[in-house]
Amino acid sequence: MLVLREAFAGTSRFDRFQTKLEIGRTLLAERLNRLVAEGVFERVKYSERPERFEYKLTRKGLDLYPVLLALMEWGDRYKVQDPPVRLFHKACGAEADPQLVCSHCAEPVAYGDLHAEYAPDAW
Amino acid sequence: MLVLREAFAGTSRFDRFQTKLEIGRTLLAERLNRLVAEGVFERVKYSERPERFEYKLTRKGLDLYPVLLALMEWGDRYKVQDPPVRLFHKACGAEADPQLVCSHCAEPVAYGDLHAEYAPDAW
Repeated sequence: MLVLREAFAGTSRFDRFQTKLEIGRTLLAERLNRLVAEGVFERVKYSERPERFEYKLTRKGLDLYPVLLALMEWGDRYKVQDPPVRLFHKACGAEADPQLVCSHCAEPVAYGDLHAEYAPDAW
Repeated sequence: MLVLREAFAGTSRFDRFQTKLEIGRTLLAERLNRLVAEGVFERVKYSERPERFEYKLTRKGLDLYPVLLALMEWGDRYKVQDPPVRLFHKACGAEADPQLVCSHCAEPVAYGDLHAEYAPDAW
Protein backbone atom coordinates (compact mmCIF):
# COMPACT_ATOMS: atom_id res chain seq x y z
CA MET A 1 0.00 0.00 0.00
CA LEU A 2 2.81 2.41 0.83
CA VAL A 3 4.50 1.57 -2.47
CA LEU A 4 1.24 2.32 -4.24
CA ARG A 5 0.79 5.57 -2.39
CA GLU A 6 4.23 6.69 -3.53
CA ALA A 7 3.48 5.66 -7.08
CA PHE A 8 0.32 7.76 -7.09
CA ALA A 9 2.39 10.64 -5.75
CA GLY A 10 4.54 10.35 -8.87
CA THR A 11 7.40 8.09 -7.81
CA SER A 12 8.54 5.55 -10.41
CA ARG A 13 12.24 4.81 -9.89
CA PHE A 14 13.62 2.21 -7.55
CA ASP A 15 16.02 4.53 -5.72
CA ARG A 16 13.33 7.13 -5.24
CA PHE A 17 10.92 4.57 -3.78
CA GLN A 18 13.69 3.50 -1.46
CA THR A 19 14.46 7.04 -0.26
CA LYS A 20 10.80 7.84 0.27
CA LEU A 21 9.86 4.58 1.97
CA GLU A 22 13.10 4.03 3.90
CA ILE A 23 12.98 0.28 3.46
CA GLY A 24 15.66 -2.22 2.48
CA ARG A 25 16.45 -2.89 -1.18
CA THR A 26 15.58 -6.58 -0.90
CA LEU A 27 12.18 -5.95 0.62
CA LEU A 28 11.39 -3.19 -1.86
CA ALA A 29 12.44 -5.38 -4.81
CA GLU A 30 10.22 -8.17 -3.52
CA ARG A 31 7.23 -5.86 -3.20
CA LEU A 32 7.74 -4.31 -6.63
CA ASN A 33 8.23 -7.71 -8.27
CA ARG A 34 5.05 -8.96 -6.71
CA LEU A 35 3.13 -5.91 -7.90
CA VAL A 36 4.57 -6.39 -11.40
CA ALA A 37 3.56 -10.07 -11.30
CA GLU A 38 0.05 -9.00 -10.26
CA GLY A 39 -0.12 -6.62 -13.20
CA VAL A 40 -0.39 -3.54 -10.99
CA PHE A 41 2.94 -2.11 -12.20
CA GLU A 42 4.83 -2.57 -15.41
CA ARG A 43 8.60 -2.40 -15.56
CA VAL A 44 9.71 0.03 -18.25
CA LYS A 45 13.29 0.57 -19.38
CA TYR A 46 14.22 4.25 -19.24
CA SER A 47 17.97 4.01 -19.78
CA GLU A 48 20.07 1.70 -21.99
CA ARG A 49 23.47 2.32 -20.45
CA PRO A 50 23.37 1.62 -17.67
CA GLU A 51 20.24 -0.44 -18.14
CA ARG A 52 17.62 1.01 -15.81
CA PHE A 53 13.93 0.44 -15.29
CA GLU A 54 11.11 2.37 -13.77
CA TYR A 55 7.82 1.15 -12.38
CA LYS A 56 4.69 2.55 -13.94
CA LEU A 57 1.16 1.92 -12.77
CA THR A 58 -0.88 -0.04 -15.30
CA ARG A 59 -4.59 0.55 -15.90
CA LYS A 60 -5.23 -2.11 -13.27
CA GLY A 61 -2.92 -0.27 -10.87
CA LEU A 62 -4.45 3.13 -11.59
CA ASP A 63 -7.85 1.64 -10.84
CA LEU A 64 -6.71 1.11 -7.25
CA TYR A 65 -6.89 4.87 -6.74
CA PRO A 66 -10.30 4.84 -5.02
CA VAL A 67 -8.95 2.27 -2.55
CA LEU A 68 -5.94 4.43 -1.73
CA LEU A 69 -8.06 7.54 -1.47
CA ALA A 70 -10.51 5.86 0.88
CA LEU A 71 -7.63 4.59 2.98
CA MET A 72 -6.02 8.05 3.11
CA GLU A 73 -9.31 9.57 4.25
CA TRP A 74 -9.56 7.00 6.99
CA GLY A 75 -5.92 7.47 7.95
CA ASP A 76 -6.36 11.23 8.14
CA ARG A 77 -9.36 10.79 10.40
CA TYR A 78 -7.82 8.34 12.82
CA LYS A 79 -4.08 8.21 12.53
CA VAL A 80 -2.53 11.61 12.18
CA GLN A 81 -3.09 14.99 13.75
CA ASP A 82 -1.99 17.00 10.76
CA PRO A 83 -2.50 15.17 7.50
CA PRO A 84 0.75 15.30 5.51
CA VAL A 85 -1.07 15.80 2.23
CA ARG A 86 -4.09 17.93 1.46
CA LEU A 87 -5.92 17.14 -1.75
CA PHE A 88 -7.86 19.64 -3.79
CA HIS A 89 -10.32 18.86 -6.53
CA LYS A 90 -8.97 20.55 -9.66
CA ALA A 91 -12.39 20.94 -11.25
CA CYS A 92 -13.99 22.98 -8.48
CA GLY A 93 -11.01 24.05 -6.36
CA ALA A 94 -12.49 22.77 -3.10
CA GLU A 95 -10.50 20.70 -0.69
CA ALA A 96 -11.28 17.17 -1.72
CA ASP A 97 -13.39 15.12 0.63
CA PRO A 98 -14.28 12.32 -1.74
CA GLN A 99 -17.47 10.55 -0.96
CA LEU A 100 -18.90 7.24 -2.12
CA VAL A 101 -22.23 7.59 -3.86
CA CYS A 102 -24.48 5.25 -5.78
CA SER A 103 -23.76 5.70 -9.49
CA HIS A 104 -27.45 5.17 -10.17
CA CYS A 105 -29.18 7.61 -7.80
CA ALA A 106 -26.14 9.67 -6.67
CA GLU A 107 -27.08 9.32 -3.01
CA PRO A 108 -24.24 8.64 -0.55
CA VAL A 109 -23.55 5.00 0.16
CA ALA A 110 -22.64 3.94 3.69
CA TYR A 111 -22.55 0.68 5.57
CA GLY A 112 -26.10 -0.51 5.98
CA ASP A 113 -27.28 1.13 2.76
CA LEU A 114 -26.44 -1.91 0.71
CA HIS A 115 -28.12 -5.26 0.48
CA ALA A 116 -25.89 -8.20 -0.41
CA GLU A 117 -26.87 -11.16 -2.54
CA TYR A 118 -24.50 -14.09 -2.50
CA ALA A 119 -23.86 -16.27 -5.50
CA PRO A 120 -25.02 -19.86 -4.85
CA ASP A 121 -21.47 -21.20 -4.64
CA ALA A 122 -19.97 -18.28 -2.72
CA TRP A 123 -18.48 -19.41 0.60
CA MET B 1 -8.79 -7.27 5.05
CA LEU B 2 -10.51 -10.65 4.77
CA VAL B 3 -11.38 -10.53 8.45
CA LEU B 4 -12.89 -7.10 7.90
CA ARG B 5 -14.85 -8.26 4.89
CA GLU B 6 -16.36 -11.05 6.97
CA ALA B 7 -17.19 -8.64 9.76
CA PHE B 8 -19.03 -6.36 7.34
CA ALA B 9 -20.91 -9.41 6.10
CA GLY B 10 -22.16 -9.90 9.66
CA THR B 11 -19.68 -12.32 11.19
CA SER B 12 -18.72 -11.62 14.80
CA ARG B 13 -17.82 -14.89 16.51
CA PHE B 14 -14.40 -16.50 16.50
CA ASP B 15 -15.55 -19.91 15.28
CA ARG B 16 -17.59 -18.38 12.52
CA PHE B 17 -14.64 -16.29 11.30
CA GLN B 18 -12.59 -19.45 11.32
CA THR B 19 -15.10 -21.46 9.30
CA LYS B 20 -15.53 -18.68 6.76
CA LEU B 21 -11.87 -17.81 6.39
CA GLU B 22 -10.47 -21.32 6.71
CA ILE B 23 -7.39 -20.17 8.59
CA GLY B 24 -5.70 -21.51 11.69
CA ARG B 25 -6.86 -20.48 15.16
CA THR B 26 -3.49 -18.98 16.09
CA LEU B 27 -3.31 -16.80 13.00
CA LEU B 28 -6.92 -15.71 13.36
CA ALA B 29 -6.43 -14.86 17.04
CA GLU B 30 -3.36 -12.80 16.15
CA ARG B 31 -5.24 -10.86 13.49
CA LEU B 32 -8.25 -10.22 15.72
CA ASN B 33 -6.07 -9.15 18.64
CA ARG B 34 -4.22 -6.73 16.42
CA LEU B 35 -7.47 -5.26 15.11
CA VAL B 36 -8.73 -4.92 18.69
CA ALA B 37 -5.47 -3.21 19.67
CA GLU B 38 -5.90 -0.83 16.73
CA GLY B 39 -9.41 0.01 17.89
CA VAL B 40 -11.05 -1.43 14.77
CA PHE B 41 -12.86 -4.16 16.70
CA GLU B 42 -14.03 -4.36 20.27
CA ARG B 43 -14.25 -7.62 22.13
CA VAL B 44 -17.66 -8.02 23.71
CA LYS B 45 -18.68 -10.78 26.08
CA TYR B 46 -21.83 -12.52 24.88
CA SER B 47 -21.89 -15.50 27.20
CA GLU B 48 -20.93 -15.87 30.88
CA ARG B 49 -20.73 -19.65 31.09
CA PRO B 50 -18.76 -20.58 29.21
CA GLU B 51 -17.20 -17.14 28.94
CA ARG B 52 -17.33 -16.20 25.27
CA PHE B 53 -16.60 -13.07 23.32
CA GLU B 54 -17.55 -11.71 19.97
CA TYR B 55 -15.82 -9.13 17.83
CA LYS B 56 -17.78 -6.05 16.91
CA LEU B 57 -16.67 -3.31 14.55
CA THR B 58 -16.18 0.02 16.33
CA ARG B 59 -17.00 3.37 14.73
CA LYS B 60 -13.38 3.43 13.54
CA GLY B 61 -13.82 -0.02 12.05
CA LEU B 62 -17.15 0.81 10.42
CA ASP B 63 -15.49 3.82 8.82
CA LEU B 64 -13.28 1.41 6.86
CA TYR B 65 -16.33 0.47 4.79
CA PRO B 66 -15.47 2.72 1.82
CA VAL B 67 -12.01 1.11 1.68
CA LEU B 68 -13.51 -2.39 1.60
CA LEU B 69 -16.11 -1.39 -0.94
CA ALA B 70 -13.50 0.17 -3.23
CA LEU B 71 -11.35 -2.94 -2.90
CA MET B 72 -14.31 -5.22 -3.68
CA GLU B 73 -15.10 -3.19 -6.79
CA TRP B 74 -11.52 -3.52 -7.93
CA GLY B 75 -11.45 -7.21 -7.10
CA ASP B 76 -14.65 -7.81 -9.04
CA ARG B 77 -13.18 -6.04 -12.04
CA TYR B 78 -9.84 -7.84 -12.09
CA LYS B 79 -9.85 -10.94 -10.00
CA VAL B 80 -12.97 -12.95 -10.44
CA GLN B 81 -15.16 -13.96 -13.34
CA ASP B 82 -18.38 -14.16 -11.36
CA PRO B 83 -18.37 -11.87 -8.33
CA PRO B 84 -19.43 -13.90 -5.28
CA VAL B 85 -21.45 -11.05 -3.87
CA ARG B 86 -23.72 -8.60 -5.66
CA LEU B 87 -24.60 -5.44 -3.79
CA PHE B 88 -27.78 -3.49 -4.23
CA HIS B 89 -28.44 0.03 -3.02
CA LYS B 90 -31.43 -0.23 -0.69
CA ALA B 91 -32.57 3.34 -1.32
CA CYS B 92 -32.99 3.05 -5.09
CA GLY B 93 -32.87 -0.70 -5.68
CA ALA B 94 -30.19 -0.49 -8.37
CA GLU B 95 -27.19 -2.77 -8.34
CA ALA B 96 -24.61 -0.79 -6.43
CA ASP B 97 -21.66 0.55 -8.37
CA PRO B 98 -20.39 3.01 -5.82
CA GLN B 99 -18.47 5.89 -7.22
CA LEU B 100 -16.15 8.44 -5.63
CA VAL B 101 -17.33 11.98 -6.08
CA CYS B 102 -16.22 15.34 -4.73
CA SER B 103 -18.42 16.17 -1.74
CA HIS B 104 -18.31 19.82 -2.81
CA CYS B 105 -19.29 19.73 -6.49
CA ALA B 106 -20.52 16.09 -6.74
CA GLU B 107 -18.43 15.44 -9.86
CA PRO B 108 -16.62 12.08 -10.03
CA VAL B 109 -13.09 12.07 -8.68
CA ALA B 110 -10.46 10.02 -10.48
CA TYR B 111 -6.70 9.93 -10.46
CA GLY B 112 -5.45 13.14 -12.01
CA ASP B 113 -8.45 15.14 -10.84
CA LEU B 114 -6.82 16.01 -7.57
CA HIS B 115 -4.01 18.36 -6.79
CA ALA B 116 -1.87 17.51 -3.76
CA GLU B 117 -0.32 19.99 -1.38
CA TYR B 118 2.25 18.60 0.99
CA ALA B 119 2.68 19.84 4.50
CA PRO B 120 6.11 21.46 4.97
CA ASP B 121 7.41 18.58 7.08
CA ALA B 122 5.80 15.75 5.11
CA TRP B 123 8.39 13.34 3.74
